[in-house]
Amino acid sequence: MSIVCVGSVALDSVKTPSGERGEALGGAATYFSAAASLFTHVDIVAVVGEDFPRQHVDFLASKGIGLEGLERRPGRTFRWTGEYGFDLNEAKTLKTELNVFESFHPKVPAALRKSEWLFLGNIDPRLQLDVLSQIEKPKLVAADTMNYWIAGSLEPLKKLLARIDLLFVNDSEARQLSGETNIVKAALAIQAMGPRIVCIKRGEYGAMLFLPREGQGRDGEQIFALPSMPLAEVRDPTGAGDSFAGGFLGSLAAGGRTDAQALRRSAVLGTVLASFTVEQFGLERLGSLTTAEVEERFQIFSRLTWHGHV
Amino acid sequence: MSIVCVGSVALDSVKTPSGERGEALGGAATYFSAAASLFTHVDIVAVVGEDFPRQHVDFLASKGIGLEGLERRPGRTFRWTGEYGFDLNEAKTLKTELNVFESFHPKVPAALRKSEWLFLGNIDPRLQLDVLSQIEKPKLVAADTMNYWIAGSLEPLKKLLARIDLLFVNDSEARQLSGETNIVKAALAIQAMGPRIVCIKRGEYGAMLFLPREGQGRDGEQIFALPSMPLAEVRDPTGAGDSFAGGFLGSLAAGGRTDAQALRRSAVLGTVLASFTVEQFGLERLGSLTTAEVEERFQIFSRLTWHGHV
Repeated sequence: MSIVCVGSVALDSVKTPSGERGEALGGAATYFSAAASLFTHVDIVAVVGEDFPRQHVDFLASKGIGLEGLERRPGRTFRWTGEYGFDLNEAKTLKTELNVFESFHPKVPAALRKSEWLFLGNIDPRLQLDVLSQIEKPKLVAADTMNYWIAGSLEPLKKLLARIDLLFVNDSEARQLSGETNIVKAALAIQAMGPRIVCIKRGEYGAMLFLPREGQGRDGEQIFALPSMPLAEVRDPTGAGDSFAGGFLGSLAAGGRTDAQALRRSAVLGTVLASFTVEQFGLERLGSLTTAEVEERFQIFSRLTWHGHV
Repeated sequence: MSIVCVGSVALDSVKTPSGERGEALGGAATYFSAAASLFTHVDIVAVVGEDFPRQHVDFLASKGIGLEGLERRPGRTFRWTGEYGFDLNEAKTLKTELNVFESFHPKVPAALRKSEWLFLGNIDPRLQLDVLSQIEKPKLVAADTMNYWIAGSLEPLKKLLARIDLLFVNDSEARQLSGETNIVKAALAIQAMGPRIVCIKRGEYGAMLFLPREGQGRDGEQIFALPSMPLAEVRDPTGAGDSFAGGFLGSLAAGGRTDAQALRRSAVLGTVLASFTVEQFGLERLGSLTTAEVEERFQIFSRLTWHGHV
């Protein structure tokens, strides 16, 4: 199954304790599709300005990413400038220039309206709803969101939640959205708002997947908990969450199954993809990644987490 | 194999968002030995005051814990008063009354000097060294420490590290001790100081075990990473780390093996024991825990973390 991905394509300027990069290719849709394209075909729906470098378009095309939905509009491309401290845990945003993204009204090309797998990157929930309405018969809809929309656009966000299958959020977003301090209670409360699958991203601490209540079987558990990949070098955490979502949804769509076993395996592949992303700046590592390297690290992750499961 | 455990036995007054308890049985040696005693025999070396309630002695004895090394001295028992905020992540110490603990000079009873397994709870590293010198031929020595000793008693701590097999520390202690920000580098640097096994405790985020460099075999990984047990109710995190160490070392000593497979399994059992402790105040849950409940939760943990390991 191929995936339609809506979100930002940006030029990122990032500084971390390991160095800095100016106006490098970035954005949620970029990381998501670069990661997912290792497993399946992805079409991007996004907007860039007239100044968007040709080499970035070529890069995306070289990954086999469908660019029919990548609008080029008069004006400048969305830019983000951020900085990470020594612990690399949270980005400090220094500047956000929305530019052409400010008036972004995503249009799904006619040829993609029959798509069945949809990833709604972190944009205004009204736009996420609008994109969803353009897809004729979606089979699996995943979305990301953030504190800004939870605080300021809760009503459209709730409408969206009622219509999606999978939500990606981090710890604090889950707490904010649910009003629950305990993360297990928070995730269960979010499941009750609509998405039958909730994935809590915890950065360097791993992730938790809350699986559908039904169909777990007698021996099943509703939760899948996994650590992140221990890494001796982390140079730039930008895009980790979107790479996670891309590896997760890409591998899931490639297999075409959404049972608990497939979801668990995909969460590990999301973790693997994110681990590659953060080892270098921007897309420097993800851009040259091979499926053999992904498979090798999946095996390493399996050994890292093995305790003699019965 | 039985274990000798040196550390604090205390009266804890704790307040959390779930309630409060005054002067309840606590202390590192108490949690450690209550957890470890589910797997093997433990002897405590500790000190209490004249005011230490008889019922607490009876409780420890009822768990089969050896109390020959539990000195009763003139004066009052060590008391700790603390409080946790809504996120339950870190205790705020309101009051520490060392009392008889201030002049504690642990004496290992003659009958225990031939013991082979030793747990040196978080006390002055000079005392930890002193206890170690009283054991004739230790086979496995594990220790805990804290920021206070790393900052103020680094030299004796380093002497200790050179003589132990396993160190338990949390993230920030590992960073402080090694001077490395990256947690993988920090753990490897600590291994180079002596302990061939380093266990990084991350509270609600799980743990990482750095295994001996040798003997991992061709397919082995030097790291074992595991999440914590997802819990919908956490009432009091006090004693989680010591329960973890007790479950870990107790199950390891019971099996008598220290190969990678045994260490991984024991880290999971440590996680399981800690998960029970935090569900209730103080020793309320740990005190009534059965091996059948431990085994059941071990199986749940295995399913929670299973992704189809090959």
